[in-house]
Amino acid sequence: MSEKRNLTSVLDAVSDLWSPHIVGEVNDYDVKAANVAGEYPEHAHDDTDELFIVLAGRLHLDLPDRTVTLDPMDVYTVPRGVRHRPRAEPGTRILNIEPRGTTQDGTSQGAVGKRLE
Amino acid sequence: MSEKRNLTSVLDAVSDLWSPHIVGEVNDYDVKAANVAGEYPEHAHDDTDELFIVLAGRLHLDLPDRTVTLDPMDVYTVPRGVRHRPRAEPGTRILNIEPRGTTQDGTSQGAVGKRLE
Repeated sequence: MSEKRNLTSVLDAVSDLWSPHIVGEVNDYDVKAANVAGEYPEHAHDDTDELFIVLAGRLHLDLPDRTVTLDPMDVYTVPRGVRHRPRAEPGTRILNIEPRGTTQDGTSQGAVGKRLE
Repeated sequence: MSEKRNLTSVLDAVSDLWSPHIVGEVNDYDVKAANVAGEYPEHAHDDTDELFIVLAGRLHLDLPDRTVTLDPMDVYTVPRGVRHRPRAEPGTRILNIEPRGTTQDGTSQGAVGKRLE
């Protein structure tokens, strides 16, 4: 049986920015949480959509044709193949939902999220 | 392109209890939000895990061998095939993440979530 996890407690213990931690699993999908601030390099995921939920702060997603700004409890999906540059204000906390093994930067070498003990 | 949705705004507009609304999509998975209180009938999903995130209030999941109690920002996955009876305190708000078409009660006739306009 899996155990419950608390998103606030997990993120309180993470000091690195843009360091996704796997807080939940459903079949072959992972739910990842991260503290973010400043810019993350523009990238795309060729094989999967990427769903964002903002828990705190404010996240901007620079898309090819516009910028989507997400406030707490906003949900938005970047469709597969769409380039996006995440930018976050200080103190921003986000969740991502995507297939297990999806890399953070869309490359085959990118981080897939840290699994909690 | 998809549009962003705000979980709080969506749930503020839903008066029915245990009425999941689809607030986000990622590939063939749906993220569903619901206002819940009181009991929902015990059931199981034979083909899929079911991930819960509690946004507000308190949700109890009566499992065969124990009860898991979830407070705000708690994440928990009921593994496929495991019977569970959700019970919620007044004012509870939850998210579920599961494959598109998963029915609420585990039967082939159950609700699959209301799609927002």
